Amino acid sequence: METTLSSKTKTIIIGPDHPFVMIGERINPTGRKKLGAEMAAGDFSRVRRDAETQVAAGAQMLDVNAGVPLADEAALLVQAIQIVGEVTDTPLCIDSSVMEALEAALSAYEGKALINSVTGEDERLERILPLVKKHNAAVIGMANDETGISMDPEVRVSIAEKIIRRAQEHGIARENVIIDPLVLTVAADPNAARVTLQTMQMIHEHLGVNMVCGAGNVSFGLPDRPPLTAAFLAMAMTCGLTCAITDATDPIIRQSVRASDVLLSRDQYAAKWIKEFRQKQKAVNSNQ
Amino acid sequence: METTLSSKTKTIIIGPDHPFVMIGERINPTGRKKLGAEMAAGDFSRVRRDAETQVAAGAQMLDVNAGVPLADEAALLVQAIQIVGEVTDTPLCIDSSVMEALEAALSAYEGKALINSVTGEDERLERILPLVKKHNAAVIGMANDETGISMDPEVRVSIAEKIIRRAQEHGIARENVIIDPLVLTVAADPNAARVTLQTMQMIHEHLGVNMVCGAGNVSFGLPDRPPLTAAFLAMAMTCGLTCAITDATDPIIRQSVRASDVLLSRDQYAAKWIKEFRQKQKAVNSNQ
Repeated sequence: METTLSSKTKTIIIGPDHPFVMIGERINPTGRKKLGAEMAAGDFSRVRRDAETQVAAGAQMLDVNAGVPLADEAALLVQAIQIVGEVTDTPLCIDSSVMEALEAALSAYEGKALINSVTGEDERLERILPLVKKHNAAVIGMANDETGISMDPEVRVSIAEKIIRRAQEHGIARENVIIDPLVLTVAADPNAARVTLQTMQMIHEHLGVNMVCGAGNVSFGLPDRPPLTAAFLAMAMTCGLTCAITDATDPIIRQSVRASDVLLSRDQYAAKWIKEFRQKQKAVNSNQ
Repeated sequence: METTLSSKTKTIIIGPDHPFVMIGERINPTGRKKLGAEMAAGDFSRVRRDAETQVAAGAQMLDVNAGVPLADEAALLVQAIQIVGEVTDTPLCIDSSVMEALEAALSAYEGKALINSVTGEDERLERILPLVKKHNAAVIGMANDETGISMDPEVRVSIAEKIIRRAQEHGIARENVIIDPLVLTVAADPNAARVTLQTMQMIHEHLGVNMVCGAGNVSFGLPDRPPLTAAFLAMAMTCGLTCAITDATDPIIRQSVRASDVLLSRDQYAAKWIKEFRQKQKAVNSNQ
């Protein structure tokens, strides 16, 4: 199944036969106090730099979140989207839990955005899905609901099914729902990653839709996180993950994703791999 | 299923609930002309160093191969095994396609060795399996036969089944056969890794035995090989691989294996991961 997303001038496809899509996670003030304070004060220079750096590192999409406490999130989100659109043409993932912010951002965005996100909660579904339809967007469906996050893969799969069904009832095509099977840290529960991988396999086999996740969650609270996130991405790609909200600027993570593309025949005859290797060599040589 | 292997003084277990076992691949003159020439001349200093380095890097077993063209392989293999036994107590994987060399090495080895390897070819099975039984060893069963290497996972699985059945007919327990589902390079066939991963999943599900592979083969002929091998190992571990003949001294590969252990609940609460992180930090600090 293929999900198409676009900016005003660029279209990308998410799907199992295409290179894995890294959605840059950095434009998000959660846990980045400085960024939040700057945004609230109308300074978007860091947002601009983060957009440029992530795209240069290979992010094919960017997540944009403007959740600064006590600020006018709708206004900040619209501004952030405009700034990002000035420096890059990658399609955006519009990330907010505030309805007014989502509405304002979708109205301002030119292209087909990915909305981050809706859960399986009835109240959320009935508020978000009409917005997805109205703006001809795609949406991330998180596999949790009123009952919380289940550690039973079958429960997560059934919530995913519910979200897809409801979306279809709202006239949203199946390919415009990207499921997030939920990633929790193995620091709290050693089985957390296994449950997610099993959920992914089941969704891949039974529902066939595209999947996304917040990959870095898996290593939260542990030291030396990038290699953990990197290995998890290789595993998840084997289980059907087709895109992830992740730190594309981390070389260990990027390298694992690109290597996995080669191994899963998403980068045939390693054309991209070899090209990037030559670029790295050139960079090394020119520094000598 | 658990496979137990031992040296005179040390026992290790290979199985899905234990840390992944890296079998150090370096003591092998194939493609290492200098090593081969030294061994043929009776100089085993590099063998000794390679044994020490690999064990220090975390190899829980060592593969020992003495296939030097025109040399007395049986004599060299016995000597190599004795030298390695002097510097480390890890169990060994005895690697030869020459019957006389295998016989001599197994007679000289004290403990329960892993024999590398037998294929599904009738003639090989009837020669190797009695040796496995006689020496109470375990054996690697390669999923190819007289017809060559199939790109159909079902054919590989049926060859694996045949090897296990024949072993049992020779009085060898199921857990003493470790299947190699065969790894070929993606440089020649973009589907090579996918076929292997699918074979692993099927063997894991239907046969439940331990699996090994020569992980580095997957990246043969490509530049920047370690990240490819590392990502492949994370994928393969997700599909049931429990040990691999690999370069334990490569930090990217070792890191991916250890991270995968954390993610697959083989290193509960990341105890080993955190310990190794602290050791790395100490090493960095003491260098400053």
